[in-house]
Amino acid sequence: MTDPATAYEELKAAGLTLDLTRGKPSSEQLDLSQALLGLPGAGEYRAADDTDTRNYGGLMGLPELREIFAPALQVPVGQLVASNNASLELMHDMLVHALLSPVPGAPTRWVEAGRVAFIAPVPGYDRHYGVCERLGIDLVTVPMTADGPDTDEVERLVADDPSIKGIWCVPKYSNPDGVVYSDEVVRRLASMPTAAPDFRIMWDNAYAVHHLTTDEVEIADVLTLAAESGNPDRPLVFGSTSKITLAGAGVSFFGASQANVDWWVKLTSKKTIGPDKVNHLRHALFLRDTAGLRAHMAAHRELIAPKFAAVDRLLTEAFADTEGVSWTNPKGGYFVSLTVPDGLASEVVRLAKEAGIALTPAGATHPYGKDPQDATIRLAPTLPPLDEIERAMAGVVTCVQLALSRR
Amino acid sequence: MTDPATAYEELKAAGLTLDLTRGKPSSEQLDLSQALLGLPGAGEYRAADDTDTRNYGGLMGLPELREIFAPALQVPVGQLVASNNASLELMHDMLVHALLSPVPGAPTRWVEAGRVAFIAPVPGYDRHYGVCERLGIDLVTVPMTADGPDTDEVERLVADDPSIKGIWCVPKYSNPDGVVYSDEVVRRLASMPTAAPDFRIMWDNAYAVHHLTTDEVEIADVLTLAAESGNPDRPLVFGSTSKITLAGAGVSFFGASQANVDWWVKLTSKKTIGPDKVNHLRHALFLRDTAGLRAHMAAHRELIAPKFAAVDRLLTEAFADTEGVSWTNPKGGYFVSLTVPDGLASEVVRLAKEAGIALTPAGATHPYGKDPQDATIRLAPTLPPLDEIERAMAGVVTCVQLALSRR
Repeated sequence: MTDPATAYEELKAAGLTLDLTRGKPSSEQLDLSQALLGLPGAGEYRAADDTDTRNYGGLMGLPELREIFAPALQVPVGQLVASNNASLELMHDMLVHALLSPVPGAPTRWVEAGRVAFIAPVPGYDRHYGVCERLGIDLVTVPMTADGPDTDEVERLVADDPSIKGIWCVPKYSNPDGVVYSDEVVRRLASMPTAAPDFRIMWDNAYAVHHLTTDEVEIADVLTLAAESGNPDRPLVFGSTSKITLAGAGVSFFGASQANVDWWVKLTSKKTIGPDKVNHLRHALFLRDTAGLRAHMAAHRELIAPKFAAVDRLLTEAFADTEGVSWTNPKGGYFVSLTVPDGLASEVVRLAKEAGIALTPAGATHPYGKDPQDATIRLAPTLPPLDEIERAMAGVVTCVQLALSRR
Repeated sequence: MTDPATAYEELKAAGLTLDLTRGKPSSEQLDLSQALLGLPGAGEYRAADDTDTRNYGGLMGLPELREIFAPALQVPVGQLVASNNASLELMHDMLVHALLSPVPGAPTRWVEAGRVAFIAPVPGYDRHYGVCERLGIDLVTVPMTADGPDTDEVERLVADDPSIKGIWCVPKYSNPDGVVYSDEVVRRLASMPTAAPDFRIMWDNAYAVHHLTTDEVEIADVLTLAAESGNPDRPLVFGSTSKITLAGAGVSFFGASQANVDWWVKLTSKKTIGPDKVNHLRHALFLRDTAGLRAHMAAHRELIAPKFAAVDRLLTEAFADTEGVSWTNPKGGYFVSLTVPDGLASEVVRLAKEAGIALTPAGATHPYGKDPQDATIRLAPTLPPLDEIERAMAGVVTCVQLALSRR
């Protein structure tokens, strides 16, 4: 084997320009939704209930589209809202609403509550942290386990501190670890006692149908479990078609208890006369039904599963027997999480950058961009073509080997 | 002439179901944008700069679309943002941003400013009031004149009171009076001294190209006048295609100083990865250029000008010589404002409702739904077909006559 320093010099000399930073669909994935670009088609604008989708109105979104997604998101269709193109915006605006108007069950608006904090399981999704940082909501970290957030720790934190108003969750194929929350974790989150009467679970089910294997994993139904525990207003469920149809031109969803939905509709009616219902119709015509959605996601799987397999193969070849180096092999979602010995993650990212391989900054999976262990690297293998994934990962392997050798 | 009471009984007996409540485009107007429903078309997704509009990103919106609207909105294209389907949402979110993060020039976030108040010229647009009412921003009314808000009164209010942080303006073909702000009013609003260093003009140029006559009225350039007066950050310009293309599936715009736009982009980057750029491309392909936009608006004019003419004709026939009854005959926009003697507006609306003619609630043109004179009725003649407009207005005439006879 070439020594790591020489291999790294050769890597730099190759002059690569490769990018594994963000969970973006590839052109081939976007091509799967080619037909959307010509839909609904001239003369097609009536919804199933005869609504003219072109005109104003309809804050809940188009019923036939909500019906397609209600089973996947485990929300009754009457409590599921379809909105514009970004579920991140729905989540952000939900917290804005909570800051400026009391959520059902809240003693005050959160801007009047003094400190407001959310629990952030780590590693997690940088944009969730960004929303809280921007809105002045503190983040309290708890570690992720193979079954979801460390629930003992979550229960301990929320039991006594009424300033902890919520928790961020990506319950299926989590970003970046690919963790699927166990039924027991979901049950405990839904039912645990909280000091805050207005505690909320931000249930970002971003990868509800994004399976990488034919084992189409299911998770427990958080809304039902919460209602059965006497906490019907606790979960706020989010989803979107950003990684199903078109990343920038899809549809987002929000589901919750009727009280939460009524509250949301009342506040949202002050800021918009309704979402883009033509885009809802376009999506309903394209996906057709739950079976159509499932078939469409199988086509995505065929395109991206080989990329994830390549990442796993190259890491296994290099590090199967290396203590301190491990990685996830997720059954769904958009990310592989690579763990290196403490203190090396940012060095690996730096070395990769100098060799023309862009990786997500090492701290991005933690609040405020700071991973105290400096050990987690998030890899996003969907966007580049397979051959680029292979070249990029060979380069990452070289960078990890160099960093290890210099310890 | 039949006596008013008998005429009203006959009107009720006719069993009408007519609606003049909201400024919605008619089906025929929406049909003008039929081609949008099939655009951009399969395989069409590249922007002029080769961006794949289907994927994430591009917070400023598609440049070629912004170029088409920059002249109409009098904003340099580099300072004009194209967003999703609702300019009301842009306005609402702008005030949310200002509440939660200091605007350029602000000493504090507005949530920390104690009282925050906006000036509302009356009569005005109920949804503007709704945004402020929902966000806890007080409304201070000033009367509209034929040239715009009473600028003496505005100058007096803002000179000494730092809690007055802004003013709502619909500067061209105002809702509901159809007033066009004079150059002098625009200049004074842009240059007047304000006690608040973070004073903002919410410049809702909703009807920038919505001419009802071939006299395509122009207004003064508020951004340039403000910059020349040393107040570059004062105006926030808004617009949309809701009444140009598809009311629920259009594109909204925001323009301002570079400092304001940078501030907005920074905050908005925390809530979305970008707007629906496919819809931007769809609109750019459909409208093509400034000339295409102008021709499209001329087609709207042909459809709706006869409806406004019918309203004017029926009111003239009935009330040309009636003291205390007057109405506007606007050169653009979406509304006719009917003024009746003090105390009669809500009675007319009630009589019309009982006869099956829905009118906007009498107080809607004033903050908190209360018109102290109870004299203004907003008529929206775009949605119903011409024959329904004629029947509805004949009914309104009867209701006004009955209300007058009972005084």
